[in-house]
Amino acid sequence: MTDKPNSRRNPLVRPNPISGFPEYSPEVCLELHQRLQAVAKLFASHGYTPIQTPIVERLEILQAKGGDVDKEIYTLGRAAQSDGTDAELALRYDLTVPLARYVAAHFGEITFPFKRSHIGDCWRGERPQDGRYRQFKQADIDVISINTLPLSFDADIPLIANEAIRTMGVTDHVFRVSNRKILSGALSALNVAKPQAVTRVLDKLEKIGRAEVARLLADNLGVSSTDCDLLLSLAQITSHDTEFTEQVRALNLKHDLLDVGLRELEYVVSRAQASGASEFLVDLSITRGFDYYTGTVYEVQWRSQPHLGSIAAGGRYDDLSSNYIRKRLPGVGMSVGISRIFGKLVQTSAIAPSKKTTTDVLIVWDRASSEKSLQDIARQLRARGQCVEVYHSATKLAKQVQYADRKGIRFVVFPRFNEFKDLRTGDQALFNVETFNQK
Amino acid sequence: MTDKPNSRRNPLVRPNPISGFPEYSPEVCLELHQRLQAVAKLFASHGYTPIQTPIVERLEILQAKGGDVDKEIYTLGRAAQSDGTDAELALRYDLTVPLARYVAAHFGEITFPFKRSHIGDCWRGERPQDGRYRQFKQADIDVISINTLPLSFDADIPLIANEAIRTMGVTDHVFRVSNRKILSGALSALNVAKPQAVTRVLDKLEKIGRAEVARLLADNLGVSSTDCDLLLSLAQITSHDTEFTEQVRALNLKHDLLDVGLRELEYVVSRAQASGASEFLVDLSITRGFDYYTGTVYEVQWRSQPHLGSIAAGGRYDDLSSNYIRKRLPGVGMSVGISRIFGKLVQTSAIAPSKKTTTDVLIVWDRASSEKSLQDIARQLRARGQCVEVYHSATKLAKQVQYADRKGIRFVVFPRFNEFKDLRTGDQALFNVETFNQK
Repeated sequence: MTDKPNSRRNPLVRPNPISGFPEYSPEVCLELHQRLQAVAKLFASHGYTPIQTPIVERLEILQAKGGDVDKEIYTLGRAAQSDGTDAELALRYDLTVPLARYVAAHFGEITFPFKRSHIGDCWRGERPQDGRYRQFKQADIDVISINTLPLSFDADIPLIANEAIRTMGVTDHVFRVSNRKILSGALSALNVAKPQAVTRVLDKLEKIGRAEVARLLADNLGVSSTDCDLLLSLAQITSHDTEFTEQVRALNLKHDLLDVGLRELEYVVSRAQASGASEFLVDLSITRGFDYYTGTVYEVQWRSQPHLGSIAAGGRYDDLSSNYIRKRLPGVGMSVGISRIFGKLVQTSAIAPSKKTTTDVLIVWDRASSEKSLQDIARQLRARGQCVEVYHSATKLAKQVQYADRKGIRFVVFPRFNEFKDLRTGDQALFNVETFNQK
Repeated sequence: MTDKPNSRRNPLVRPNPISGFPEYSPEVCLELHQRLQAVAKLFASHGYTPIQTPIVERLEILQAKGGDVDKEIYTLGRAAQSDGTDAELALRYDLTVPLARYVAAHFGEITFPFKRSHIGDCWRGERPQDGRYRQFKQADIDVISINTLPLSFDADIPLIANEAIRTMGVTDHVFRVSNRKILSGALSALNVAKPQAVTRVLDKLEKIGRAEVARLLADNLGVSSTDCDLLLSLAQITSHDTEFTEQVRALNLKHDLLDVGLRELEYVVSRAQASGASEFLVDLSITRGFDYYTGTVYEVQWRSQPHLGSIAAGGRYDDLSSNYIRKRLPGVGMSVGISRIFGKLVQTSAIAPSKKTTTDVLIVWDRASSEKSLQDIARQLRARGQCVEVYHSATKLAKQVQYADRKGIRFVVFPRFNEFKDLRTGDQALFNVETFNQK
């Protein structure tokens, strides 16, 4: 091994993980995988079925959407001269753009409505900070159809997303719902000149406050003070039930689109109430940017972690794949910020990992037993769903038990004595390989 | 929506997936996830516990290993001007380098022997071809300890990997095992001048044949024809049991290292035999490159897909993390080529996906039933582990049944008639929400 390129005399390379790219130990990983599996099972139990797309997309696909995210896109290059077959590639920054491309690319094979789930990593070159990672996991569900999409999905999606958030371990969140058509209808009813610019200003309500919004609407966009008051009153309507309709009616705005929006939102809220979920709140200030969503919109905040921003969001869009295919493909979907939620639960010790291993049972290796007999015991227990290790050498008993203790393995089997010990309770009992079944 | 940036009048962007980056439909994804879950469960049942590392590493970490892979590394850049906080980053090309870095970075928190599993994607800018992808999934298990590592792991690892390969759906593979110490000992016994160069030539035996190896050893490396015959005879020894020892002894080579190698390999083969696995074959031509592995080595070929090369490989290494930490950390591990196996199974129709959805049960929405009553049925079935959809609108029965049929949903429930239909058998029966439990 004399010509080994990296001998001990070489200077050491720093092994630290990179800021913004989370790295999880086995104990934390076990907690994450358990939750991810539960979320995947939840999505599956509602018929939302996974697809897999590459983490890499052509840069032109990712940039087609436009907007602020462009400057955060990670592009791919090659450490050495490429063979010239590389397209210009980049890492995806969400799971929605890959879905839009996927639906266009595989249009002919898909049975619509297409209910897809996707739990996967995304990348953005943001400055790492609390709750913001450069590599982050999202759990998305979307449904897409051709030409029209039934309203029932606008209620299904947030109910499932709400369960996913609970499954991740959040207990104190508020699930805000609104419908874009209400504000759009109101702006049309008032004949406001620049509806999109006005919407963008109203979207800042929570951030900059009522007075500043009023000033911007009047000074920059020429909205009359009566209209301004009306719009601000509209945006400040909240309710836990369908009462919001009366509050909107009281503003005396008349427009078909507004009526449609009210009926749609009533349906979504009724379904949420019928399901018994108490986290839902109609909040007409929610707009989620303007160019993308066209109907129901969702935004979830974590009450005890308000600075994290939204931990889940989404809405209905008219035309997801119009960049790639000349079909009208409306959809509705939500994205749950797995990394944002999980990172905070670990950081605040709401999740306190205790097991360093999946192993439930350690079989002690004593010299009196043949290795084959020990492996046979392990095989029988594994066949019954137990996670089992045979200790890796015939060393002192105390050392073997200490290993179990350090790794958080609960049961230790002493084959020679036909006994097992529960390290959690300290209890010792007879071991029978045929009947032993502890978790 | 008049200023929507991507209106229908814009030219379309091609939505095709990128060559070498596999993309899976729901039906294929369901098959893959099912197998991945089974492999993860298998690893867990032996106490191999997952870690998560970023898919991104510092370029210097990836290049520290040296070798051919360097020119295939994908580096990361930014589509727009970065804020200057980026390190030089690149996508990992295997799961071993991240493990080596992880162990060094978290040395103090780890309980050794550290048994870790990792199922994850890797990237190499290879020219895409049959069985070679630019994004590919691997399933790795490794165990690492401090200073010494018991030999029992050299037998555990291939037995688990063998089960993983079976779990993926391969039935006709050969699991070749050897031990580097045997050849190293023989070369020392013969006092061969350039042992590493000779090993590299012998490694080509299968590729270039006995005659050409003999020519290279004699002409380029000055190996005598007697030694050459001996070495070729050694390299051509194969056996399904421990008989190889006698064959090696017959060559009359004497060296301590050779003896150690024989004993180690005998142990591994005995354990394989005791387990009943029939895929194992001692093949002393296996060396797996020279600078990395130091003892037991593994290489698995798929008999019916020989051109794929190895579908799993690995071995024992003395010192995994010596680039990052001044500790001796020996390990043994294997990597199973999930994408290579799965891609071929799909391509050859050995896997024939039939379900387009996770859904087992479709509940028909008829106008006679309240939506709440339908959702309640779905909720009750889901609570018992069924995957259930309520059809999304109260349209014609025939259309709803057709949807189930097209998506491969087996059971359709007609709440109004208290009946359900099994679309596979055509049978119709009474539906009772309390007792219905079909999969």
